[in-house]
Amino acid sequence: MSDRSVDVAIIGAGPAGLMLAHLLRREGLSTVTVDSRGEEEIHRTHRAGILEHASVEMLAHEDLGSRVLSEGHRHDGIDLRFDGESHRVDFRELVGESVWLYPQNEVFHDLASAAHHHTMDVRYEVSEAHPLDIDSENPGIRFVESDGSSRVVRARYVVGADGSRSVCRNAIPEHRRTHSSTTYPFAWFGILATAAPSAPELIYARSPRGFALISQRSADVQRMYFQCDPDTDPDAWSDEDIWNELQKRIDGPDHLELKTGPIFEKTVLKFRSFVCDPMRYERLVLAGDAAHTVPPTGAKGLNLALADVRVLAPALASAVRGNSALLDEYSSTALSRVWKAQNFSYWMTGMLHQDPEESTFASARHRGELRSVVDSVHGQAFLAEQYTGWPDIPTTSG
Amino acid sequence: MSDRSVDVAIIGAGPAGLMLAHLLRREGLSTVTVDSRGEEEIHRTHRAGILEHASVEMLAHEDLGSRVLSEGHRHDGIDLRFDGESHRVDFRELVGESVWLYPQNEVFHDLASAAHHHTMDVRYEVSEAHPLDIDSENPGIRFVESDGSSRVVRARYVVGADGSRSVCRNAIPEHRRTHSSTTYPFAWFGILATAAPSAPELIYARSPRGFALISQRSADVQRMYFQCDPDTDPDAWSDEDIWNELQKRIDGPDHLELKTGPIFEKTVLKFRSFVCDPMRYERLVLAGDAAHTVPPTGAKGLNLALADVRVLAPALASAVRGNSALLDEYSSTALSRVWKAQNFSYWMTGMLHQDPEESTFASARHRGELRSVVDSVHGQAFLAEQYTGWPDIPTTSG
Repeated sequence: MSDRSVDVAIIGAGPAGLMLAHLLRREGLSTVTVDSRGEEEIHRTHRAGILEHASVEMLAHEDLGSRVLSEGHRHDGIDLRFDGESHRVDFRELVGESVWLYPQNEVFHDLASAAHHHTMDVRYEVSEAHPLDIDSENPGIRFVESDGSSRVVRARYVVGADGSRSVCRNAIPEHRRTHSSTTYPFAWFGILATAAPSAPELIYARSPRGFALISQRSADVQRMYFQCDPDTDPDAWSDEDIWNELQKRIDGPDHLELKTGPIFEKTVLKFRSFVCDPMRYERLVLAGDAAHTVPPTGAKGLNLALADVRVLAPALASAVRGNSALLDEYSSTALSRVWKAQNFSYWMTGMLHQDPEESTFASARHRGELRSVVDSVHGQAFLAEQYTGWPDIPTTSG
Repeated sequence: MSDRSVDVAIIGAGPAGLMLAHLLRREGLSTVTVDSRGEEEIHRTHRAGILEHASVEMLAHEDLGSRVLSEGHRHDGIDLRFDGESHRVDFRELVGESVWLYPQNEVFHDLASAAHHHTMDVRYEVSEAHPLDIDSENPGIRFVESDGSSRVVRARYVVGADGSRSVCRNAIPEHRRTHSSTTYPFAWFGILATAAPSAPELIYARSPRGFALISQRSADVQRMYFQCDPDTDPDAWSDEDIWNELQKRIDGPDHLELKTGPIFEKTVLKFRSFVCDPMRYERLVLAGDAAHTVPPTGAKGLNLALADVRVLAPALASAVRGNSALLDEYSSTALSRVWKAQNFSYWMTGMLHQDPEESTFASARHRGELRSVVDSVHGQAFLAEQYTGWPDIPTTSG
């Protein structure tokens, strides 16, 4: 009762799933990609905004429209603030790399538009999508179309790119996967505001009141965050209270005054660190948030998802052609980067946040850690290298 | 009833106290230094063995005998082992610096011999030493000589270099000092053995069985450690068990076999991180372990003590001559380095030990952290810089 048969069936049409579909298209493979959300709904989801240089290279490909180069903003550094001081970390000077400010919904827009342009099979607003027969030679996916009709698509491989609440991950037998995680005693209060940019680059601030991140989005919309209790009700905060709180946390020698304006989105973002190991079971492979989530402090979530599919696409192409050596390495290759990113995200989070239960020792140590970094060209370069992204690991079987 | 009067009275004749006395002698100041231990007893105490380059420079002064240069061993790197791999961190290539293996009791020997040579007033085996009138213009110390006679020595300033159980620290009113500390759920099992060196440089190993450190001491005596439960009874371990445990923890691609021999000292070393802030109250100043202790993983304890007195000596000399500006900066200058060292020691300890309660997330993250360091020239340089020692902070009032 299969409707059709493809090389790779992908559950999840976020950046990981769609980018993978594009990479496989270039390899000459056929795909179907399904998502429970509508195209407009995904496009409206405001998420990460910082792309590593390797992520930008993927998006800058001409068959994806290359809009990142004209619409994105190259950032050559960040500003670290603590103890009333401000320290610029110059990525370009330290490690010769930059990052790009280009919001995740723009990434999705480019990938989805290009999928239409290349008449790829992407189906939105499906329900009950789940993998089938993943431990057989003939796996597939089943889902219900938005018109109510049930579909089965057979494939050589199934990819779970279906986010942190992944159905695909749960299709792996429990005794064949290990989950590792940690939680944090705080969350981020995030706003979108109609205002001019307050600074040309991101400001990461540790203050006795907690962490704050001054980010940008466009010439007239800004994204900012401040550490809050996970139980915070965003509607209990007035615009004035929010601006006051942000202003207090970025105290520096320049007495920078935030440019304020109407706040049109307020959300409390809870986060945890999570890893599923391995990222593959038989004919099912996981990519992106389905396999791992990181706290947002290191700006690694979207970049890890794109790094996964950078490794996965050639591995799947090779496996479809009969050589599964690269695919056999996929999980360990991807997880090596994932654990570096987990550590970097944990490190940045711990160093910049004020744990409400934190001892005087922990607080002073974290400030000593920040000072060790900013006082040292090696410390700054170590941070810059991790922020702008590690080089890909050369595969042994390529 | 003062027996005599000096510029600076020092309680504690360990490396911090004696080095300070020598530095003050060079500044033309008079000192008295007292210790409850006997000279032989201090000399027999086996402690740290790794000196930063700045510590070596202090000891290499010709008026201290310069024995460190002929008897010490320059180490240009360390070997980091984990996940069955071995990675050399080349300090000299990375940051142009080295460390020196020169045990603390040799440091003490040089300082004590030079004190005799320069006929400095150092009194061992005193009892009940404590500071007097530290919030007056005429402070001093009181102590009982080994012959039972009570003494009072008046001074312009009193220095507490009397170790982690400092009597001087407790003479600071409680509301005028803050103690910060953290403890660790493990200890070090340390041995001294009659054996040839197993490796030319220190080996720091993280294994699923816990941390191990392969160190050296001389051509025929070696110092090694392995992580153990703090309640371990050292006498419950046979030589054979100890060698087996050490061997299992340093698994690497070279299948390095430890050179064994009779073990003549077995100790369980408990440790914690501790900082007293500020390090000065009126006419009393703290230096070394009296103000701060670190876990031994970063080899920072003795080096921090010597860094303290490097800052303190010119500050005291200037204060005795009537300008206390440098002395007013002493605590914040010293603590800035102390907190970097606390962070480095905490970082090395966490990264290399296996907390018995550690989650799978924490264990994998720490291994990702080690990999981030060894895979990166910036990570290695950041470690090398911290291990070999930060440059002194320029003082603003000098």
